[in-house]
Amino acid sequence: MEKPLEELIYRLSRLPGIGIKTARRLSYFLLESDEGEVKKLAESIVEAKEKISECSICHDYTDTDPCTICRSDRRDRSVVCVVERPQDVQVMEQTGKYNGLYHVLHGVIVPERGVVPGDLRIKELLERLKHEDIKEVILATNPTKDGDTTARYIARMLSDVEGIRVSRIAHGIPVGGDLEYYDNLTVATALAHRTDFKES
Amino acid sequence: MEKPLEELIYRLSRLPGIGIKTARRLSYFLLESDEGEVKKLAESIVEAKEKISECSICHDYTDTDPCTICRSDRRDRSVVCVVERPQDVQVMEQTGKYNGLYHVLHGVIVPERGVVPGDLRIKELLERLKHEDIKEVILATNPTKDGDTTARYIARMLSDVEGIRVSRIAHGIPVGGDLEYYDNLTVATALAHRTDFKES
Repeated sequence: MEKPLEELIYRLSRLPGIGIKTARRLSYFLLESDEGEVKKLAESIVEAKEKISECSICHDYTDTDPCTICRSDRRDRSVVCVVERPQDVQVMEQTGKYNGLYHVLHGVIVPERGVVPGDLRIKELLERLKHEDIKEVILATNPTKDGDTTARYIARMLSDVEGIRVSRIAHGIPVGGDLEYYDNLTVATALAHRTDFKES
Repeated sequence: MEKPLEELIYRLSRLPGIGIKTARRLSYFLLESDEGEVKKLAESIVEAKEKISECSICHDYTDTDPCTICRSDRRDRSVVCVVERPQDVQVMEQTGKYNGLYHVLHGVIVPERGVVPGDLRIKELLERLKHEDIKEVILATNPTKDGDTTARYIARMLSDVEGIRVSRIAHGIPVGGDLEYYDNLTVATALAHRTDFKES
């Protein structure tokens, strides 16, 4: 096989979820595509990488520093929602139900894989709490083993900061979900965290 | 969401088999990756597109013209294997059982979608037969409805060319299958069991 094609297949196959067959299929697709379109793809890769970096306040990805949310005067600056990854900010924003600030950790604590608190943006969060007038920290890491470990770690770090409410997103059965399809722990947690329910 | 990131997600989502969720996942992966690696990916896309074009003889993709196979003095220049796409040449080569030349059609006849013989490299094949000393044309289009239609069309075009055996790869590959997804042995057997093919 020709060298530039081999190189392209190799590079594409290193992307997550792209096996060698998919990489080959994509490569041939690109060779058959319009040159302008292909160059735009390559440019958008370079441009995203060059123009987007971490917001110095919330550590979300941004092409301006501070990011749009951190700069906004329409957000509630007394609440910070702590998430694992930048894409979680998008998920939260899409709900249209949150109007506070964010803090992106860029990962979770995974002792087995050597990911320790120092690898995450945790000290940056503690620093923010000193300078910003924050009343509540919502821990919105995923309800997984590692997400829970990370939430507990941060909660412990915040336990002696005066006047800050620390909350955790609710665990339970997703809206529209079917009990039958969720694991015991999820169902048990949903049961333990049951709320009063009155039909008016 | 930031413009350069949105653009990248959009561009990636236009690739075949890449939905919006996968495009988003890949984009964030790229943002988290080492800048050098990301640039190498972008460069390999541009480079493959710029350096690779169709061989003027067999129409396979190549970075030299004529391609390695067309230039080689170790190939049997009396046999031409006709395939749908450049990736099929790779599949044939991987069997290690074929030592002749190739001719890449760049598609198949699909009347419903308006793909007619003139859109394929069929006249280029007929032209080759006039100038090259070819004794056999192996029709190795996929054993699908369109692949069969195309094979029959070419067989008919060759029916009055003197002294040329026209053969069709054996239906060792299930009807409706795609060459690209079968193992070397299956492809090699289909090649070995090719039968004479004449459109009456």
